Amino acid sequence: MITLAPKPLFTPLILAFRAWQARLPNGSTTHIAAPAKAAKQGFVSLVGAGPGSADLITLRGLERLQAADVVYYDRLADPALLKRARKTARLIYVGKAPGCHAMPQAQINALLVQSAQAGQQVVRLKCGDPGIFGRGAEEADAMNAAGVAWDIVPGVTSACAAAASARSFLTERGQTERLILATGHLRHDGAQDWTTTAQAGTTLACYMGVSQAASITQGLLGAGWPAACAVQVISKAQTREEQVFHCRLDRLEALCAQHPNLNPAILLIRWTLTDAASGVSPVHTIAVSA
Amino acid sequence: MITLAPKPLFTPLILAFRAWQARLPNGSTTHIAAPAKAAKQGFVSLVGAGPGSADLITLRGLERLQAADVVYYDRLADPALLKRARKTARLIYVGKAPGCHAMPQAQINALLVQSAQAGQQVVRLKCGDPGIFGRGAEEADAMNAAGVAWDIVPGVTSACAAAASARSFLTERGQTERLILATGHLRHDGAQDWTTTAQAGTTLACYMGVSQAASITQGLLGAGWPAACAVQVISKAQTREEQVFHCRLDRLEALCAQHPNLNPAILLIRWTLTDAASGVSPVHTIAVSA
Repeated sequence: MITLAPKPLFTPLILAFRAWQARLPNGSTTHIAAPAKAAKQGFVSLVGAGPGSADLITLRGLERLQAADVVYYDRLADPALLKRARKTARLIYVGKAPGCHAMPQAQINALLVQSAQAGQQVVRLKCGDPGIFGRGAEEADAMNAAGVAWDIVPGVTSACAAAASARSFLTERGQTERLILATGHLRHDGAQDWTTTAQAGTTLACYMGVSQAASITQGLLGAGWPAACAVQVISKAQTREEQVFHCRLDRLEALCAQHPNLNPAILLIRWTLTDAASGVSPVHTIAVSA
Repeated sequence: MITLAPKPLFTPLILAFRAWQARLPNGSTTHIAAPAKAAKQGFVSLVGAGPGSADLITLRGLERLQAADVVYYDRLADPALLKRARKTARLIYVGKAPGCHAMPQAQINALLVQSAQAGQQVVRLKCGDPGIFGRGAEEADAMNAAGVAWDIVPGVTSACAAAASARSFLTERGQTERLILATGHLRHDGAQDWTTTAQAGTTLACYMGVSQAASITQGLLGAGWPAACAVQVISKAQTREEQVFHCRLDRLEALCAQHPNLNPAILLIRWTLTDAASGVSPVHTIAVSA
C-alpha cells in the first residue's frame, strides 16, 4: 500500500509565501494575478505542470492546484502532483495517449466551461507550458465564447527540461542563435515543411518526433541539414526513467528503431555555425548511452 | 524601511516537500537530481529564476537557492528571490544591462569555477530558462574544463511568461504550428537572416528586440511576412509594471518609438495559416493598451 503524507503538506509554504508577499513594498516586481474571488464566480487557470517531475511546477502553479475545486489533468503531468490537490477536489483525467484519447477536445472545452459556470475554481493541468503544443487556444476560445474568466500560469516547456536533462543548451552564443520548436506531424496529418528550418546556427527541438523519425530525417536532409549534425534524443526527461541518446542526424531513424519505448521524447537537432564554417559535416561519435 | 518576513520562510515547505517525496514508492516519476553532498565538493547549479515574478521559480529552483553558499545573479531575476537565500549566503551581482556589463562573461565563468573549487554550493541564478539566450554554455565550458560538477535547473522562459501575460498562445493548432525563438541582434552585431523564418503558420518570439524594432520589421517584411500580421509587445512581463501592446507588423517600429521604456520586452509576431489562406494580409485593429 502506498502511504503518502497528508495533502495539506504544502499549505504552510503557500501561506508563508503569501504572507511574505503581502509585506513587500509597493513597486516590488513580485506579482501574482489572483483568480477571481467573488462567490459563485468560477475561474479557470491553465496551469503548466512542467514536464516529468513534480518539483518542476512553479510556486504559482502549485498554489493554483491547491486552491482548485476541480482539476482536469493530462497524461504526461506527474501523477504525484495530483496528491497536492485538496482532498475534496475532483480529479478528472482528460489525457490523450497516441491513438487513444480519453476525451475529444470539444468535450474537454465544454467541461471547463461547465465547471466554471457552476462557480468552481478550475485548474486545467497541462504538461510543460500551456502555450506550447497544448491546445490551450481551443480551450481559451471556448471560455471566451462562454464569458468564462481564465488565465495562464506558465510552465517549464519540455524542450527546456530535456536540454537540462542532457546538460546541454538550446542556444549557444556564436553557435546556435535560433531555436525552433516544432512537432513531428501537423494537424490532419499535414507534413511539416522543413525547408524553412534550414539555416546554420539553429537548434531544432522536435516534440512528439520519435514515431516520425524517418520522415523528419528525410525532410531535414532534403532541406539541407548536414547528415552529421548532432542529435540528442531525450526520453522521459526529468523522470527516473529518463535516458539521453546521441547520434548523427542520418542515424536518427536507426536509433529510434533500435529503442522502441522512447516516448515521450524530445529530439534536439543542432546545426552549429562551426559546422557550417568548417565546410564539411563534422563527424561525431555515435554514442548510445544507457 | 522595508520589512520582510524572516528568511527561512520557505524552509518548512521545502522540508515538507522532501519528506513527502522520500515516502513516494519506487517507480514514481518524481525525481530530483541532488547536487553532490560530499564534504568540500563544490557544485554549481544553473538555475532558471523564471521571468519577472518570484513565484514563477520552480520548487526545485527555490530549493537550490535556499541551499546555496553563494548566488551569482542576473539583472532581470526578481530581486525578491534573493531574500529567500540563506542569511549567510553571499549574493553577487553579475548582471548585464544593455551597454553596461557589471562583469565580462569570462570573469563570471572564472568566479563560478573558483567558488566550486573552494567547496561551495553555488547557484547561478538566471532570468528565464538557463538554456535559452543565457550564455550558460560558456559557463558550462569553463566548468567542464576545470572539472567542476554542475547541472541545470530549467525555468520558465520569457516567451512563455510573456504569452501568459498577454493571455495568448505561442502555438495554436491549425494556425501557428511552429515557434521560433530568436534575438534582435546576434553576436558581434551580426544581422539575423530572417528569410528562413518566413513561413505561414509561425510564431516568432523575439527576445531583446525593442531596440532593433526597425531592422526586425524591415527584415521580416523583406522576407515575406505580411505587413498586417499581428504583433504583441509584452513589456516587463509578469511584473507589476507589465504592459501589453498590439499592432500590425508594419506599425511595430512606430509603436516602439512611441513608448521608449519598453525594455525588457518580448515581441510575439504571428503569421497564421488563416492569414495565408485568406490570400490577403488581414487587417487587425491597432490597439495600444495601458
